[in-house]
Amino acid sequence: MINDVISHIDSNRDGYLSGLEAWLRIAGISTDPEAKPAIRDAALWAHRFFENCGIESEIVETQGHPAVIADTGPVDSDSPTVLIYGHYDVQPAGDLSLWKSGPFEPDIRDGRIYARGSADDKGQVLTHMLAMEAWKKVAGKLPMRVKFLVEGEEEIGSPNLGKILEDHKDRLACDYVCLSDTPKFSEDKPAITYGTKGMIYKEVTYTAQTQDLHSGAFGGTFPNPGNALADTISRMKDADHRVTLDGFYDDVVESMPEELASLETLPFDENAYRESVGAKALTGEAGRTTLQRRWLRPTLDVNGLLCGFTGEGAMTIIPAKAMAKVSMRLVPDQSAEKISASFDAFIAKHTPAGIDHQIKTFTLCEAYMCPLDNPGLQHAAAAVEAGFGEAPAFTREGGSLPILPLFKRVLGAESLMIGFSLPTCNLHGPNEFMVLDDFYKGIRTSAHLINQMAS
Amino acid sequence: MINDVISHIDSNRDGYLSGLEAWLRIAGISTDPEAKPAIRDAALWAHRFFENCGIESEIVETQGHPAVIADTGPVDSDSPTVLIYGHYDVQPAGDLSLWKSGPFEPDIRDGRIYARGSADDKGQVLTHMLAMEAWKKVAGKLPMRVKFLVEGEEEIGSPNLGKILEDHKDRLACDYVCLSDTPKFSEDKPAITYGTKGMIYKEVTYTAQTQDLHSGAFGGTFPNPGNALADTISRMKDADHRVTLDGFYDDVVESMPEELASLETLPFDENAYRESVGAKALTGEAGRTTLQRRWLRPTLDVNGLLCGFTGEGAMTIIPAKAMAKVSMRLVPDQSAEKISASFDAFIAKHTPAGIDHQIKTFTLCEAYMCPLDNPGLQHAAAAVEAGFGEAPAFTREGGSLPILPLFKRVLGAESLMIGFSLPTCNLHGPNEFMVLDDFYKGIRTSAHLINQMAS
Repeated sequence: MINDVISHIDSNRDGYLSGLEAWLRIAGISTDPEAKPAIRDAALWAHRFFENCGIESEIVETQGHPAVIADTGPVDSDSPTVLIYGHYDVQPAGDLSLWKSGPFEPDIRDGRIYARGSADDKGQVLTHMLAMEAWKKVAGKLPMRVKFLVEGEEEIGSPNLGKILEDHKDRLACDYVCLSDTPKFSEDKPAITYGTKGMIYKEVTYTAQTQDLHSGAFGGTFPNPGNALADTISRMKDADHRVTLDGFYDDVVESMPEELASLETLPFDENAYRESVGAKALTGEAGRTTLQRRWLRPTLDVNGLLCGFTGEGAMTIIPAKAMAKVSMRLVPDQSAEKISASFDAFIAKHTPAGIDHQIKTFTLCEAYMCPLDNPGLQHAAAAVEAGFGEAPAFTREGGSLPILPLFKRVLGAESLMIGFSLPTCNLHGPNEFMVLDDFYKGIRTSAHLINQMAS
Repeated sequence: MINDVISHIDSNRDGYLSGLEAWLRIAGISTDPEAKPAIRDAALWAHRFFENCGIESEIVETQGHPAVIADTGPVDSDSPTVLIYGHYDVQPAGDLSLWKSGPFEPDIRDGRIYARGSADDKGQVLTHMLAMEAWKKVAGKLPMRVKFLVEGEEEIGSPNLGKILEDHKDRLACDYVCLSDTPKFSEDKPAITYGTKGMIYKEVTYTAQTQDLHSGAFGGTFPNPGNALADTISRMKDADHRVTLDGFYDDVVESMPEELASLETLPFDENAYRESVGAKALTGEAGRTTLQRRWLRPTLDVNGLLCGFTGEGAMTIIPAKAMAKVSMRLVPDQSAEKISASFDAFIAKHTPAGIDHQIKTFTLCEAYMCPLDNPGLQHAAAAVEAGFGEAPAFTREGGSLPILPLFKRVLGAESLMIGFSLPTCNLHGPNEFMVLDDFYKGIRTSAHLINQMAS
C-alpha cells in the first residue's frame, strides 16, 4: 500500500505546490492586530483542507487567534496515535526592501519557494497534511489514528496553547507528538531533533545613588554600579567557562557514551561553523567539543549591558545605575525554578554594600529531551531515510521550545521533531524559503511515518 | 593704603553689582555657534572695563573665541608679578523650565545673584578686576604688577589656551597664576585649592563576531564580548578597591603627615556628604579616609557600558560587540602617558582569544599640585583670612584642570586657586548663583592679596 501512496504523492506535485502557494498568500501575521482577518483566513484554509480530505476538523476559538484541530478517527488496530503539531501564523515581513519578491507572493527561484511561512511553518506542516490526504485518497482510510493541532499563536509565544491542551486533553490524547518546525542538519542531511534547551532570562539592575555623579568630585568614594555589576557578572563563570551559580550542574544529566559517539559521526565542520558568523575563535566550557557545548551543555550569556554615558566622546560620571540582561540555557534535568532561585541568590550574595539590586525574570522554561531509545524516534528515522534516501542526523538544539515540556506534561507524550527546512532558510528574516525538493520529500517522509508506526 | 582700598570697596557695592549684572546679561555661550556675537560682546565688556580703569588691555584673537589680556605695568619694587586667570564664556542654560529666573536676566533673591556665569566664572574673575580698579582709584597705581588673562573657551576645554600662552609667553610672564574658578569649602569656610587630579578617559570596544548571534543556536560556543568585557573590567580592581594596572601606584607621591593632619582638621561631615547624593554607603580604596580617597588617591571608574540588547523585555542574543567607557583620575607624580600605556597593555593582555579590542583615548591630562610650602599659598591664605574674616581650608580637588599643568609648563608658575563660590552653586545646572556677600568679600580678598604680595 505504501508504494501506491508514494506513487500518488510523486505524481501530484503540481497540485501540492498550488496548495502551498495558496496558503502562503494569506498574510496571517500573529503579531499584527490588523492581520486578524488574514489570521482567520489562514485557519479556515487548513480547516477546509481537512474537510476536503474527509478528515473531521474544527476551528477552536481561544482568547487570541483560533487553532485548528483535526482527527482521522479511531482505527481497529492497536497502532499508536500521533498528534501532528504545527502553526499557520507567521512572523512579520520586516524590511520589505530586503525581499527579492513579495513576502506573500510566493516566488520560485532555483528550486526554492520564497515566501514568509514557507519554512516556518506552513510549508512544513503542510507536508503532513498532504501525506494524510494521499493516504485517504489511495487507501480510503489511514492505518493508524492521526490528529492535528495547527495553532495561530506560535510566533507570539503560544499564550493559549496550554489552555487548548487542557480543554481538549481527551481529543488530543496521543502516543507521540510529531512536529516539523526545526531544520535539517545540512543541505544533504535531514535531521531528527530529540532535545531542546530550557531557558531563564533575567534582567539585573544595580542602583547606587539617586543620580549620576561627577567622577571628579565624587570618584573613589561611592560605589560605582558599573564596576560592581561587571564584577558580579565576571564571577558567574570560572576560568574554564563553567558557570559558578550554586548547584548549577547538580541535576545535569551527563550524556550516555552512545550519544557522545553519535555526535562524533556528524559531518560537522567547525571552521565552516565559525566562519559562518564571522568569528575568529570558538570557545566554551573546558573539556567539551563544540557540538557538546552547543547541544548538551548548559550555558550562561550576557545579552545586554547598559550603564551611564554611552554617547560619543567623554562624560565623566559615576553612573547611578547599571543594567545587565543575562540568559541561561538549561539541559535535562536542570530545574528552571531551582536555577532561577540560585541566580537570584548569587546576585544577592555578590552585590556589594551600598548598592540595591533588582531582578526581573522574563522567561522560565524547562529543557526537553526525548529518550534516544524511544520507539517513535526509530520510526521517524526509518521514515526520514525512506523519504529522503538519507539517514537523518540525530541532533539536539541550543534553542528553547516551551511547547515540548507542555506536551509532555499535559498529554504525557514525547515529541518527535522532524526537520525539512534548511538551517539557512532565513526563518524570521527576509527571503525565507523552502527547498521544493525537501517539501516533496517531506510529504513522502510523513507518509512513510504512518506506514512505519502502523506496522 | 590697604585700609583706604578696602573702605573704597565697601562703599562701592552698588556700582560693583551693576557691573556684574551688565556682564551677566551677555549670553556668551562658547558651545553655541550662534552665540559668537555675544561671545565677542562679553570679551569687549572686559576689555573696556580694563581700559576704563586705565589698565592696558588687548583683545587677542584665536582660531576660536578671543581672549582678553591686560597688564597694570611694571613697578619699581622687586615685588612678584601675578597673572589673574579667568574666563568670560559660560555653559549653555540647559532646560529653561528649570530656571526660576532667566539665565541671562540676573535676579537677586535671599542675598544671592542668580544667573548663568554668576559663579562660573564672571562673578569670580570680576572680583579681581574690581580690586585692581579700587587700587588704581585709591592709590593711583598698584604696588605690584598684575596681569590678566580672561579667555572665552574654558567651557569647551580651552583648545587655544596653549597657543595663547606660547605666543604671549613674555607678556604673560609671572611668578604666580591666581584663579577663582573653584568653590569654597562650605558656606562658612572659604578654601584655597592647591591640587587637582589628572585624568585619562578611555573607550574600550570588544568585537567578537560580525553580527549578533542567536543565543540558542550559538550560545556556549563563541566568545561573548559582554561577558569578556565584564571580566576585564572586574580585573581592573582588587578586593581592596586598588587599581591593578601595572605600575599604577609606582609614582604616586604619598602625602606628608602634615597634609594628612590638615585634612583631619576640616569640618567634613561624611554622612551629610553621603546623603547629599542619595547614596547608601561610602566605599573606596582600603585604608584611606573618604577625603583622602577624594583628593589624594588615584581612582578608576566605569563611566558607561553598552552591549547587545538594552530595550524592554528579552532578546536572546550573543552580542557582536561590547563597549565600556573607563576613566582614571591621577595624582602627582603619576604620568598620564605612562598610565595610559599601562591601561592599553592591560586591555591587550586580558582580552581573550577571538575578541578584537579597540581603544579610544579621549583625555590625557596630568595632575597638578602647588607645593604646600609655596609662599604664594601663604599670601593667598592671609588675604582670604583678611577678606573673609575666616581662615581658608586647604583643599585638593578630585576634578581635573588641564590648564594648571599648562601654566606650570609654559610660564613656570604655580597656580593659586582661591574659591569664592559655594560648592552648591549649581555650576553648569539651572539656577546658578553667587552669594553677594561672597562676591564683595572676594573683592576685598583680591585687594588684600595685592597688599600681601607687595609687602
